[in-house]
Amino acid sequence: MTTDPLVIFTPSGKRGHFAKGTPILDAARQLGVDLDSVCGGRGICSKCQVTPSFGDFPKHGVTVAEDALSDWNAVEQRYKDKRGLLDGRRLGCQAKVEGDVVIDVPPESQVHKQVVRKAADTRVIEMAPATRLVMVAVEEPDMHAPTGDFERLKTALADQWQIDRVEAELPILTKLQPALRKGGWQVTVALHQDHSEGPARILDIWPGLAERGLYGLAIDLGSTTIAAHLCDLSDGAVLASSGVMNPQIRFGEDLMSRVSYAMMNPGGDQEMTRAVREALNGLISDLLKQAEVPAERLMEAVIVCNPVMHHLLMGIDPVELGQAPFALATSDALSLPATALDLTAMAPQARIYALPCIAGHVGADAAAVALSEAPQRSEDLALMVDVGTNAEILLGDTQGVLACSSPTGPAFEGAQISSGQRAAPGAIERIEIDPVSKEPRFRIIGLDMWSNEDGFAAAAAATGITGICGSGIIEAVAEMRIAGLLDPSGLIGSAEATGTPRCIPDGRTHSYLIWDGSADGGPVITVTQGDIRAIQLAKSALYAGARLLMDQRGVDKVDRVVLAGAFGAHISAKHAMVLGMIPDVPLDKVQSAGNAAGTGARIALCNVNARAEIEKLVRDITKIETAVEPKFQDHFVAANAIPHASDPFPELSQVVTLPDVNFNTGGGDGAEGGRRRRRRRG
Amino acid sequence: MTTDPLVIFTPSGKRGHFAKGTPILDAARQLGVDLDSVCGGRGICSKCQVTPSFGDFPKHGVTVAEDALSDWNAVEQRYKDKRGLLDGRRLGCQAKVEGDVVIDVPPESQVHKQVVRKAADTRVIEMAPATRLVMVAVEEPDMHAPTGDFERLKTALADQWQIDRVEAELPILTKLQPALRKGGWQVTVALHQDHSEGPARILDIWPGLAERGLYGLAIDLGSTTIAAHLCDLSDGAVLASSGVMNPQIRFGEDLMSRVSYAMMNPGGDQEMTRAVREALNGLISDLLKQAEVPAERLMEAVIVCNPVMHHLLMGIDPVELGQAPFALATSDALSLPATALDLTAMAPQARIYALPCIAGHVGADAAAVALSEAPQRSEDLALMVDVGTNAEILLGDTQGVLACSSPTGPAFEGAQISSGQRAAPGAIERIEIDPVSKEPRFRIIGLDMWSNEDGFAAAAAATGITGICGSGIIEAVAEMRIAGLLDPSGLIGSAEATGTPRCIPDGRTHSYLIWDGSADGGPVITVTQGDIRAIQLAKSALYAGARLLMDQRGVDKVDRVVLAGAFGAHISAKHAMVLGMIPDVPLDKVQSAGNAAGTGARIALCNVNARAEIEKLVRDITKIETAVEPKFQDHFVAANAIPHASDPFPELSQVVTLPDVNFNTGGGDGAEGGRRRRRRRG
Repeated sequence: MTTDPLVIFTPSGKRGHFAKGTPILDAARQLGVDLDSVCGGRGICSKCQVTPSFGDFPKHGVTVAEDALSDWNAVEQRYKDKRGLLDGRRLGCQAKVEGDVVIDVPPESQVHKQVVRKAADTRVIEMAPATRLVMVAVEEPDMHAPTGDFERLKTALADQWQIDRVEAELPILTKLQPALRKGGWQVTVALHQDHSEGPARILDIWPGLAERGLYGLAIDLGSTTIAAHLCDLSDGAVLASSGVMNPQIRFGEDLMSRVSYAMMNPGGDQEMTRAVREALNGLISDLLKQAEVPAERLMEAVIVCNPVMHHLLMGIDPVELGQAPFALATSDALSLPATALDLTAMAPQARIYALPCIAGHVGADAAAVALSEAPQRSEDLALMVDVGTNAEILLGDTQGVLACSSPTGPAFEGAQISSGQRAAPGAIERIEIDPVSKEPRFRIIGLDMWSNEDGFAAAAAATGITGICGSGIIEAVAEMRIAGLLDPSGLIGSAEATGTPRCIPDGRTHSYLIWDGSADGGPVITVTQGDIRAIQLAKSALYAGARLLMDQRGVDKVDRVVLAGAFGAHISAKHAMVLGMIPDVPLDKVQSAGNAAGTGARIALCNVNARAEIEKLVRDITKIETAVEPKFQDHFVAANAIPHASDPFPELSQVVTLPDVNFNTGGGDGAEGGRRRRRRRG
Repeated sequence: MTTDPLVIFTPSGKRGHFAKGTPILDAARQLGVDLDSVCGGRGICSKCQVTPSFGDFPKHGVTVAEDALSDWNAVEQRYKDKRGLLDGRRLGCQAKVEGDVVIDVPPESQVHKQVVRKAADTRVIEMAPATRLVMVAVEEPDMHAPTGDFERLKTALADQWQIDRVEAELPILTKLQPALRKGGWQVTVALHQDHSEGPARILDIWPGLAERGLYGLAIDLGSTTIAAHLCDLSDGAVLASSGVMNPQIRFGEDLMSRVSYAMMNPGGDQEMTRAVREALNGLISDLLKQAEVPAERLMEAVIVCNPVMHHLLMGIDPVELGQAPFALATSDALSLPATALDLTAMAPQARIYALPCIAGHVGADAAAVALSEAPQRSEDLALMVDVGTNAEILLGDTQGVLACSSPTGPAFEGAQISSGQRAAPGAIERIEIDPVSKEPRFRIIGLDMWSNEDGFAAAAAATGITGICGSGIIEAVAEMRIAGLLDPSGLIGSAEATGTPRCIPDGRTHSYLIWDGSADGGPVITVTQGDIRAIQLAKSALYAGARLLMDQRGVDKVDRVVLAGAFGAHISAKHAMVLGMIPDVPLDKVQSAGNAAGTGARIALCNVNARAEIEKLVRDITKIETAVEPKFQDHFVAANAIPHASDPFPELSQVVTLPDVNFNTGGGDGAEGGRRRRRRRG
């Protein structure tokens, strides 16, 4: 019968009996309790702080006496005097078990602490970063048993941290001997150990205990914008975020024109590679400056991007991605030294992780969305759409996940729209059309009021009313359909047919006038028949892609729709569904995931297991190539109508009744079913 | 009962029954017969050529009919028309088994062919290079099952060559897609797979079948000279050899002065690192030019060197090697990209392998000697000595191996000798002194006659008689001892005491006159008392090191002595033993190993298993540090006498009787027993 004291850890609930005199840190390690330590129990890093509780704990069946732990000792006292220690806290490596005790491990003492991603989101990232600080005591050299300092460091890492295979490049070996001697044979190493079977790598080394943090970057490399978050690798906190335009834009606005540039100009791919790497270095330097983090502490970056950006970043000519069969040079995740990408703004030994590409049209950005939104763990069948110049579409649940890309073109981003513009102050972002008067009211970005409210004109003068952004054009077209200004085939009615003078003739078609700023020298903002056609093409492509995945899955409805991307955050579910962009689901089942690709990059940065998870998921995903699927064309044509020529939208009809109008006067501008050239997501 | 035909391979003797129609290459692979192939059986590389034999083979118990193999086919005919094929040869991948057959695999068709190292040497190197050419057929991309071209290449390597883990860096991925398309989905890769557990690496890729060779370098990086051999990795042939002076000499003649330079001059170590890397690039370029080999085919280099050179090459400050405890930054073998050493004269993805260092004074060059001479496989107890500024000493047999380094200083190389010089034309390399007349005769480098032969003076005029090289001074001192001009304590006798006017006064001591060239303006070449002392110090250190190892092993004699290095090739066994440089063994048991370090480098270049072997041996070797071993000092003092104060030399005394003379007149220049500062091997 054991008489050893009982140690109970909270919040884990793990418990065990330990001999008197056992340090709390040792007890935690033996039980697998998540208690941090950098110095390995030397009483200097303070990462293993715990809070013992005293008194009766009927729930645990113990009573903790005041002397359940060893007395406060000199090491703890010195630490407290020098650095401070919260009342009630002990150092887990110094406090020893003397009787039954309940030990709380506060969140900041947990290695695998959970990070709430944002206030409105209950999902968390569990910290399990690839790179961490580890302090070791290395045996001094012995002439009688000569071994290299590095070999003894490896032995120490194996003995003290159970890390059996360790590598270091020459620059680290160069720093090793001075660090060991300066640190009195104790050094701290930044150790990178990812989910692969490879050895751990020493990314840097410092004498003694190195207390400063390690940092990483989550980079979302878009064809238009490069966005990056600088994160603390100990707790996942975002210390700085920034974005820059992708300088490759000067070689081509969209991806296909960049692929063309590479094809037409020898060395053009290398020019674009240099441009994006330089931009990344600039962005990284800015972030480091903002957060006052030295470059040599920036140990990792995770990169997500579409396949063309991926290849251009890696220095691979993207020409094969511009033509069937859209062959990737490599699809697996890549783990690289930062120097391989000339990312000199990071630590010299920094590592890069690029998520896997799903297919030639479905990139690492889509993989990042999948990592963030985890369709494979969804109990209900979820359709996830990342809208851009191409839409990446995922459909799945615990039974399996499918993916495809669909060539929506840039209309959803306000491009190829007569009054379209980027989302910027002055752009119309929301519109309502009164179904009786057919009069519009709208809101512009940067102003928190409707256009028919008092004082709007004065307030709007600051920016002017400059155009319609992507979410605005979707609302406009949908509202026109609801108000009976647009028939299911997508024709705008005449003033006579609709009863509003805002429907003005425009050649052989009509436009709907939203705003006439010409009196003040501003623009006349209309929705033209051409705009409607552009939106129809885009939404048909998106819907057809979704339907193709549903066919493959053998379903004709989904349980919920997740809209990712900046666009997804601003889109109105009702209007998207009136347009027939997305399959019919209850409106409250249309969710916005925000910048899911960026979130996925952050998750992969903070947790190596997530890297293994997404690599497996990408292997398992059923990939559908829309370009060669005959049914895609059928779905595309049928989806041209607003909301759809044949699919019922029962959930939508409970919310909105669409007027049954028909403006076809036989004039020949019927529904356009042709297939445009494939565009790549931006 | 099987009726399948019997296939017997020679010279291996491996045999087995195979179904009719089985290609000979397949049969060979199934039996583990060593039959080469690059193209994997496509009938285009011709590496699998075999010679079938027909008729009665009583020894094998078979009769081979004329139709034992399938008819000559179109692929073979095309190959023969285009490239030629020796009579009687077949392509193993095309010829199929039809009846019992005996198949000879000629040496050039064996992967693991054996290479005779030199004419006078029966030892062989078995070829098992790390880098080889492998051709694969890669599946074309499929839009419906999208994977990267690299991922399909990996699958092909696994399926067709059973190579499961393969890596490639970005520059290879950049070349992959064009190569696959140009080669019609067949490519040849240069695949590097060493003895480590790591994945194979693709070092280069070419469309279709790449037939040109792969090459490697064996580099012996000495503190004075850098020597390298350019080898064909398919058969080990040395295509070019060259050497250059180590440019680090301008920072210090010997190793300790280079370490001092690094200590005294901030950045001095980096200067020396740059200098040696530049010299290597120059040497490599020269070799490639000599052999007309393009740099992109130079895939590997194996480097052996002493610890200080090792650290300076790697970019590691060698300061710790200059002071006790002589700690290496790293002692294990290193496998590196050539770019890590700025070796830009090689293929961009070329690999470097540096042999392990045994201890702070016993480097990768000593490891290379061990690899070449294999003490661990010696049935008799062998003492192996690589003589330089430091002597590395190995003692061992199948029961175990010990190693140490001993600070001989540069006297054996002719340095610190009054008339000493490098081994160059005009230098006295051999000397005999008539025991009766005490007159010397000698030979100089570059002239195949003795100095007392007719015509010597005229012939020698071309170079002059310029000094004494290392082997010359050893012979001179030994001959002086044999002729009774030198007593056991190392004192040179006066003209009166020795009866020859060649013993001339020189301050309070005497010198022995070998050559007086002053009449023609040439040098007066003598052996001074100071020269004798320098040689005594050097030989005492060498002998004491050997004795220390013998003590450790518990023996007072060894079975044989192997002298390695250029010096070892020129030294006379008898004279070395008269001096007491080496322990007493029968003279025919003193062997010269030539440039064993360079040979060891070549072995490691040609055979990856040898790398594993030497790494294990170096781990297993018992390392003795002479600097801190009190008995070393005792042995050193006792070894000062010529040949020795106390150890008997019974084998020597059977060949030579040394006169019992004593020239000590109480003048104070007795045996010097002091310890000089440690010097490092050059």
